[in-house]
This record gives sequence, C-alpha cells and structure tokens, in this order.
Amino acid sequence: MKTMVKLGVIGLGSRGPQLIKPLLKMEDVQVAAVCDLYGDRVQHAAEMVREAGGEAPFQTTDYKEVLALDALDAVIIATSWEHHVEIALAAMQRGLFTAMEVGGTYRLEDCFQLVQVQEETGTPFFFLENCCYGQRELMCLNMARQGLFGEIVHCDGAYRHDLRNEISYGRENRHYRLDHYKSHNCENYPTHDLGPIAKILGINRGNRMVRLVSVASKSCGLHEYIKTQKPEDETLLHTQFQQGDIVTTVITCENGETITLTLDTTLPRIYSRNFTVHGTKGMYQEDGDYVFLEKEMEASLAEIEESPHLIWRNAERYAERYDNGLWKHPSKGMRESGHGGMDYLVLRAMVNAAKGETLPAIDVYDAASWMCITVLSEKSIQGGNMPMEIPDFTNGKYKNRTDKATGKYALD
Amino acid sequence: MKTMVKLGVIGLGSRGPQLIKPLLKMEDVQVAAVCDLYGDRVQHAAEMVREAGGEAPFQTTDYKEVLALDALDAVIIATSWEHHVEIALAAMQRGLFTAMEVGGTYRLEDCFQLVQVQEETGTPFFFLENCCYGQRELMCLNMARQGLFGEIVHCDGAYRHDLRNEISYGRENRHYRLDHYKSHNCENYPTHDLGPIAKILGINRGNRMVRLVSVASKSCGLHEYIKTQKPEDETLLHTQFQQGDIVTTVITCENGETITLTLDTTLPRIYSRNFTVHGTKGMYQEDGDYVFLEKEMEASLAEIEESPHLIWRNAERYAERYDNGLWKHPSKGMRESGHGGMDYLVLRAMVNAAKGETLPAIDVYDAASWMCITVLSEKSIQGGNMPMEIPDFTNGKYKNRTDKATGKYALD
Repeated sequence: MKTMVKLGVIGLGSRGPQLIKPLLKMEDVQVAAVCDLYGDRVQHAAEMVREAGGEAPFQTTDYKEVLALDALDAVIIATSWEHHVEIALAAMQRGLFTAMEVGGTYRLEDCFQLVQVQEETGTPFFFLENCCYGQRELMCLNMARQGLFGEIVHCDGAYRHDLRNEISYGRENRHYRLDHYKSHNCENYPTHDLGPIAKILGINRGNRMVRLVSVASKSCGLHEYIKTQKPEDETLLHTQFQQGDIVTTVITCENGETITLTLDTTLPRIYSRNFTVHGTKGMYQEDGDYVFLEKEMEASLAEIEESPHLIWRNAERYAERYDNGLWKHPSKGMRESGHGGMDYLVLRAMVNAAKGETLPAIDVYDAASWMCITVLSEKSIQGGNMPMEIPDFTNGKYKNRTDKATGKYALD
Repeated sequence: MKTMVKLGVIGLGSRGPQLIKPLLKMEDVQVAAVCDLYGDRVQHAAEMVREAGGEAPFQTTDYKEVLALDALDAVIIATSWEHHVEIALAAMQRGLFTAMEVGGTYRLEDCFQLVQVQEETGTPFFFLENCCYGQRELMCLNMARQGLFGEIVHCDGAYRHDLRNEISYGRENRHYRLDHYKSHNCENYPTHDLGPIAKILGINRGNRMVRLVSVASKSCGLHEYIKTQKPEDETLLHTQFQQGDIVTTVITCENGETITLTLDTTLPRIYSRNFTVHGTKGMYQEDGDYVFLEKEMEASLAEIEESPHLIWRNAERYAERYDNGLWKHPSKGMRESGHGGMDYLVLRAMVNAAKGETLPAIDVYDAASWMCITVLSEKSIQGGNMPMEIPDFTNGKYKNRTDKATGKYALD
C-alpha cells in the first residue's frame, strides 16, 4: 500500500479547481500535474498548489503528457463530459489509477469500452459521484440496509438545478453545456440522482436496471432567459435549443423496483435532487426532508393527514440515529470542502482506493450503467418515448457481485 | 332556468352519503331519490334526508327505477367505478342532467360512448372532479391565467393515498377496490391529479393530450400489509395482486407540455397529490407548499439555495393575493362540507349547471380524456412501457373550443 498518492488533475474548468482545493489539504496526496486545454487555467491551478505550500506541479495543455509522466500514481479526469471516456481509456491503458468525474454519455460504445479496457488492464477505476456521499443519501442507505423502509419498491431522483446562466453564458465562460443543449435532447446528467439510488437498490450487485422510457417537454426556458437576460446576443437569441426543459425518465429494475429521474435545468426554481426512497414499511423524501416510518407514525397519523407539514423537516431527528459515521463527526477538511462535505468524502474514498486500502467504491460497472442512461434516454425520446433495454455491463456478474470495497468511505 | 333541482343519487357506498350531506343544506336542491344495490345503504340515505327535514325520497335498489321517475331533473352517479358509464349513458338517453363521480375506465369504448351519447342526446353531463376546486389548484389556475408562471412547460400530479386498509378490508366493507387490485395493473385513479392540471393546460380547449407511457413497480405493499394486519385471512394472504405499488405515467401534450402522474396507494405514506406547475417564470409545488416566482426571488436566492426550507410553506402568502374568490370568503356550507370545501364547490358548480345557469364546467370531453388514461396506462404497462396514443375525443373541436361555462363556480 502506498503512503502518498501522486495525482494528475486533467480538466481545470470549474470542477477541477473545486477538487484540487480539498486534495491540497490531504497529507497523503500530492497534486503532481495539472492540465487543461487553456493555459491560464493551468497556471491558476499551479498557483493553487504553490500557495498551499506544495511542490510546483507539472503543467501542460496536453493530457497525453500527463499520462506519460513516470512518477504518477493516479489521474482525476474533470474535463468536459465528451472527453472523459477517451482520457479514461488512455489512463487505464497506461495503468494509472483512474478517477473520472461524472456526466452521461451520448455513445453506448463509451460504456462498453470503459468496461472492456478496465477488465483487460485491471487498472482500478473510480467514478467520482459525490452525491453517493450526501448526508441524507448515506443515511437512507444505512436505514435501507437495516430494513427500516421494508422492501424498497420505488425511488425518485432529480437534477433540479437552474443552470440557465451557466448555459447561456457558455461561450464567455468557456463552458461546454451550451453546445449540449443546442444539439441533444435527453437526460443529460443522470448520475447525481441515480448514483445514490443505484447504491440503495444494489444495482450491479444482485440487481440491475433492465429498461427505461424517457419523455421530454418542449424547450422554452433558455430562449425565454436569453430574451430577457442577454437580448443583445443575436446568435443566441435565434438559437433553437433541442434540449427539453423537463426530461422524465422511468427505469425498471430486474427486482421490480422503479426509479423516476427528472432533469430540470432550464427553468427558474430552487435546487433539489428530490431524493426519495419508498418501501413497504416507510419512506424518505427530500422535498419536505421527512422520514415516514409506519410503526412510529400510528399515533400522529390523523394529525399529519390533516397537516402534512407537521412531518416536514423531521429527518434531522433520524440523522442523529442513522447518519453514516462519516457524517456524525465531520472533520475540518470535510466541513471546508465543497458541496457540504460530499466532495471531501468521495475524494477520500478515491484516495484510499488509489493507495490500495480499498477497492473503488463506485466502479466501472457503476459508471457504465449510470452513464448509459443519457444515450438511451436520447434514443427513447427520438423514438417517441419508446422503451429501451439497458445493457448488463457486468455480463452476468451482477448476480453474484457483493460488497467488496470494505473500509472507510466505502459504500459497499 | 330552474329554481329547484330534484336529484336522484345512485350509489350510496361511501361517496354517495358524503355528497348527500352538503346537498341537503342547499336550498335549491331536493334529494328526491336514493338508490344502491344494498338496501341498508338506501335506508340509511333516506334517513339522512328525513333527518335534514326533507321529504322522504324515493328508495330503490334498481337504478332504472330512478331513471324512470317522472319528476326528476338530475342524477348523481356515485356507484363503483365499473358501473359509472353504463348508468351515465342510460341517464343521458333519458334526458336527465347527468353528474358522474370520478374514476378511470378499463375500456376505451366507455369514453367514446360517453361522448357519442352526450352529443346525440345533448343532455348536459358534469364530471364531478372535486380536486379541480381545491384551494391551491384554483389559486394556480388563477396565477397561470395571469401569466405569473410564464409559459407552462410541465406539471406533476399524484394520487398518493395509503388505501391498504380500505382495499384489503374490501370484502368486509363492500368496497370494490379489492377486485381492481387483484386483476389490473395501471394508473387506476388518474383524475384527482390530472383534472386540475388539464384545466391549467387548456386540455380540450386549444390543447390536448397526445401520448403517454406508463411504468409499474412490483406489487409488495398489499401483501406485506395483509401479512401483518390480517394474517388470519388465508385467501387474501395467498392472493397475488396484479397492481404495482407505484405507477408512473408521463403524458405529452400537443403544445409540448409534459405531465407526470404517480399512483401510490399501497405503501405507507402521508397523503399528497404532489400538485406542481412549472413554467418559464416560476412554479408552485405542493410538497413544500411553495411558490417560486423568479422576479420576486432574486434577493433571497442564495439563502434559499443553501436552505430550501426557507421557502417552504410560503404559498399561504400568495393565497391572500391569488386565491379564487370562492376560497377567499368560504361560506358556512363550504367549510362544513367534505375535503376542505372542494366537495361543496364542485356540487355547487354542478347544481348551477343543472339549473341551467352555466354550462358544465367539467364536461364529457374532460371525462373521456381523463378517464382513458387508465386503460391506456394498462396497455402501456402490458406492452412493456410502450407509448400509447391518446384519442382526441372532441374530434378536432378542441382547437376552437373556448371558455364557455362562465358564471360562479365555472372553471372556464
């Protein structure tokens, strides 16, 4: 086992620096290389490392130069979505522990290739889905494993995040989402909501997703936003966006559970992942932030029926009992990191795996099966909401795959 | 115009008496006939009328005897779902103002026949969807018409109601749901959630629903409930229920809006219709009971982003400004009636229409297009989530149909 992980970070737009910040506080991590297509971003990232007292990292605008470095243990890939897989394949072929940021893919082939190259090379692969480490998500995973929800029947998830500003100022801020919204219509960002649900339902570990249908609404939100916020941009003002404002995807699992995912990124709203777990004995719902466990509710049922808000925000009480240990005593590093601590936890899990202490808690089969939702939803929508089969990327192994990634920060 | 409506009530299980109670307080209504297959229910209903000081109503267990009465103006049909249409067709053919309780149908033919007979006979038909008159539903209809949500893109609705007790004690309490859950798997109760949404989206009035897909989860909830609550009932304990616990249906409208409906009646939970309206300028959501209007939120956006609950339960403030007049000064009769006043409002709308003061606010085209969701969802599920076309029951008339049912309690 390694005592120190020498890391290269490829992709330094907005996510890369967000990840570098907590990494620089970890004593067993050295950010040894930074890379982006834009030189100014590379410089900025190198300065972050120096300011934190670290050795000056290797700097380049060509990711292949990072992969060619001798003294590197691992790479984090945080580029634009469409380049994740190409770089991940090259990194695995080079034998570098490969940590890939999230996003979907428009090519089913991407998913098959990730799995194939990982299996052929044996290189450990970690999919950096931070929401798997969310406080409520881990609490519900804990409660589900203790059987408190009974047999789980359905989960909801959503990526409800008003990104109109980020998307429509894509050219100015060099963000790639703008192009996606022009040319695709699908569930383009499934993993923040699907990841934690897949962990709870044992996807790729005894269970798998077998089928989906997707439905897209019309596309109005971005145009309306541009009309009021940037009417001077004639090109954008006359752009026809393909991406529907709301995309609803319903997935069926082999064990009979259903999962509803909602993409909702181009209308005004407050952020929500609408994380919901519903079983024969109870449920948790993010909107309202409540736990409903049948056996505890009998006394107050009539009252709640009359005034549902009486139960809202009771989840904090359950957190005291059922929070994952990681959230019970959050470290300073965790509290100071992004997204309320999730980023720290997923990075620690990744670093521990890169050191050889655990297996990747979110592996290549998870990545492939979660990412393929994007391309399959696109095909479903193109076909008038046709049902699409979801491949089994484990090639049957899911039946006997069990919890292996034991150790701190492991989800399994 | 009539000054008094002589009403026959057919079907006296649980809904019939719920409707009779507020009707007995209306000075322009006489409950002139009561009918049910069970004689004890008929007697009980007749007693209700007498106790309220009314003339003894005609009593029968044969609905045809009600329809044959000379001095009757209107009938309310509140029988089990599967007999609604048969009786409604006969009532319209007899020329009696026909008010039909809600529910779906397992036969597309039912929907076409309702429309055909209504058009042929010209008999006014009113579909008693009380939730169209819900306080928040009417508030959002009002806000939508004033353009406050911008262009509406998506709506959610649900029938989330733990009915396990009612269903599994179906034999004892002579309730018909038990049989439905044994032999069907579909969105079996779409109108409480779909009705108000259809009014907001102008369905059958310039817009129409064109397609749906439905997905059902496994069926566990009832069996689990029976195992713990009535294990002594061997027959029920070994019954295989067909109905999935959660059925998700996504509807696409001609104008590009999508509607997600969730049926959720056999798992423990609190009641919710999850009524949600989402447009380019804002939204309302029932779970959280909040209004989010972009232009009003700018100042507090960062704060809400951090703590979404700060916006929860703000809808009451909007109610002061945007409530429908019917809810601003609720009458005594309304406050004392069922379901928080909705029952009173839908009955008043119906009685006014029966008197000839307005046209039916919820008409046969509404009934047909909302009820057909049940049979189409069943076919979609049977076909592995295949998309199903939704017929245009107006035969093209929806394009030019406008608001006609003007007057108090009219939704149009």
